[in-house]
Amino acid sequence: MRDVLPDEVELRDTASHAIVGVYRSYGFRRIETPALESLRLLVGSEGGENEKLIFKVLKRGEDLESALASDRGELADLGLRFDLTVPLARYYAENQARLPDPLKAIQIGPVWRAERPQKGRYRQFTQCDIDVVGVGGIVAEIELILATCEALARLGVTGLSVRVSDRRVLALIARHCGFAADRQSSFFIAFDKLDKIGRQGVLDELRAAGHEPGAVARFEALLPSLLDSDTSISALQRALAPSPEDAVAFRSLAAILAIVAPEVPAGARVTFDAALVRGMGYYTGSIFEIVSPAFPASIAGGGRYDRMVGRFLGRDVPACGFSIGFERLIAILGERGDRLEVLARPAAERARRIALLVEDDSALPRALQAARALREQGELVSLELRRKNTRKQLDDLTMHAFSDYGVLEPGKSSATVKPLRKAG
Amino acid sequence: MRDVLPDEVELRDTASHAIVGVYRSYGFRRIETPALESLRLLVGSEGGENEKLIFKVLKRGEDLESALASDRGELADLGLRFDLTVPLARYYAENQARLPDPLKAIQIGPVWRAERPQKGRYRQFTQCDIDVVGVGGIVAEIELILATCEALARLGVTGLSVRVSDRRVLALIARHCGFAADRQSSFFIAFDKLDKIGRQGVLDELRAAGHEPGAVARFEALLPSLLDSDTSISALQRALAPSPEDAVAFRSLAAILAIVAPEVPAGARVTFDAALVRGMGYYTGSIFEIVSPAFPASIAGGGRYDRMVGRFLGRDVPACGFSIGFERLIAILGERGDRLEVLARPAAERARRIALLVEDDSALPRALQAARALREQGELVSLELRRKNTRKQLDDLTMHAFSDYGVLEPGKSSATVKPLRKAG
Repeated sequence: MRDVLPDEVELRDTASHAIVGVYRSYGFRRIETPALESLRLLVGSEGGENEKLIFKVLKRGEDLESALASDRGELADLGLRFDLTVPLARYYAENQARLPDPLKAIQIGPVWRAERPQKGRYRQFTQCDIDVVGVGGIVAEIELILATCEALARLGVTGLSVRVSDRRVLALIARHCGFAADRQSSFFIAFDKLDKIGRQGVLDELRAAGHEPGAVARFEALLPSLLDSDTSISALQRALAPSPEDAVAFRSLAAILAIVAPEVPAGARVTFDAALVRGMGYYTGSIFEIVSPAFPASIAGGGRYDRMVGRFLGRDVPACGFSIGFERLIAILGERGDRLEVLARPAAERARRIALLVEDDSALPRALQAARALREQGELVSLELRRKNTRKQLDDLTMHAFSDYGVLEPGKSSATVKPLRKAG
Repeated sequence: MRDVLPDEVELRDTASHAIVGVYRSYGFRRIETPALESLRLLVGSEGGENEKLIFKVLKRGEDLESALASDRGELADLGLRFDLTVPLARYYAENQARLPDPLKAIQIGPVWRAERPQKGRYRQFTQCDIDVVGVGGIVAEIELILATCEALARLGVTGLSVRVSDRRVLALIARHCGFAADRQSSFFIAFDKLDKIGRQGVLDELRAAGHEPGAVARFEALLPSLLDSDTSISALQRALAPSPEDAVAFRSLAAILAIVAPEVPAGARVTFDAALVRGMGYYTGSIFEIVSPAFPASIAGGGRYDRMVGRFLGRDVPACGFSIGFERLIAILGERGDRLEVLARPAAERARRIALLVEDDSALPRALQAARALREQGELVSLELRRKNTRKQLDDLTMHAFSDYGVLEPGKSSATVKPLRKAG
């Protein structure tokens, strides 16, 4: 976990303001869920590895005493959320009667994972998700993909590549190769590691996990075409020869790609990626992610999870979401601050930041009036007591994002304002 | 803890946007600290009753095992912050070299307290603080009070009454009455309950706490003048007859009141309140709060805490802060939403929210183009599949904050948009 200094908060605020602005223009609205959820709810949510990383909150009072007294008592009852999707499903189930149908939700907020601290990974980090709950058709995927691409483009993230696939196609691949139906998720987990451990690593892991050797061999034979970016949806469909019922996934994939491709921002590409898996266990249909040359890992990811809401509500409600890795995005943007300013900051926020120097307390009433007059013109004004070493004070002000300084005109309630950089 | 629905999130966003806008105009800048702090840091932070309400986070892995194995092992190592002031002091101490001097910080974010759930009290709630770290003089108090009043006024909270006092004056009262020097905080805690338990209750509690009967009697004799809103600073100063050294607190109080009074927004009043105590143990100088007839309890409170940063840094740095009870503010604003909209929402956000009705997937490409054209004019556009019962669908859209609906013109990539209320 870490502190955020003023310059970075401004960058983060600017970025989230721009993203939320785009999402709102697509009809999404912000919602908020609490940081703490019932631990029972978080555990067993098909959150994959993340479930092992939950920060658990100690029970309190009598509950804690009786848990400690019992040998097998559970010491914790609450947990910090590890993503925004599981809480959304719980939120939808509990508030459905008061929510629009469909719900198009924006969530931007912190999540917590008890990972080992390492460079660029924090134990508290921000996620930025949009989800459509209540739409089974491809209009959900299309709006999610276009809105996310537009948000990233608005921030000047260029060369976006959107990769799309479908968990049902992956399931067909598993079945085609002959992997046991009840060991499909083990197959997905190994396949998902392709980027990290390579082809041979994936095949080794599948064998080590005890999958049928014939299935692994058939998968090995199929792998080149799965990794070939020129393999089209229809080519894979011919290779797998699905039943008419199973062919639905191919039709939906093809329709999403055909409709989205001409609409993405200039310079972005949308492609079918048969090797895309995505980590979470809860996906049931389309899956997608966005990569940018500016960052090695994916910058956004998501998919359809039609059976998660049902865990809380008792009946399934279709749902689909897209999540921007906000910390990754900020890392990219942090390297070119001034360009971002031009792109995203609204005109109203491009005011001067003025340090109004005050000699002593007796000048405060006049200084307050001068500051008020400047604020009324939209400037940001801070009263600062003048120090003996004014030159060093002006240097310090320059370093800390002040653009101008003001001095009171003798005997008057107005100030002369000069740019700091020239004065420093 | 609770979920926040879209309408309320918009109200909260509007309010925090307006507040942060005012604070920025006074030269404050946003900072962020993590939700979790070391438990050792939170405990013993003079946070008063709040320290008993910390949500503690269970240790993990080997640390937890060895804590469980040991009979007296501490099971938790982290805690959720219960306010934003203790984390700020830790933040300042750790990042001082990279921060402006003085630091004028805005913090707006959640805090957690394990209170018994009751109406209007939540275990996760938002605080909105400004603090000046590094200024010992009254310019800090003046900017804090004026900025907070202006932020509340900007949101249309009227009839503000700012009450100001000073912990050093309270200490003089305690000494004047003859309370033991080492039992001063017990005296403060009892006096602070005046609003809840009344005069007699306070006197009973002081006696029950074992304070010297003569001191309680002298306090009883002084009480009428402390509660009299006409009692001036100079009258109290005459009654207490402080040494020249102790008189500093009176001079600072008088100066703050004199300078602030003519500058507060129209309709607001600033008064000396000798019965103001404020709960936290860490205050060292001026204390203040704001009440409004719209809400029974105080809506904002703060004061000077010159010795807290020293706990972390090893040397004292003067500090002073003001905190808006954001949940209380939202409760007040929630009762008159439309007025708020006019007051605070920027023009750019007053776009139409349009539901663009789409017959089926084949119309999606045309619908996307029509939506894009509307978005380029600043509208918020959501694609919605048309339902059989369109009349009910339009009613639902009206209920969920859509202002207009659009239908595609036959064979074209443009839409006709009509207001929903008239159509419903």
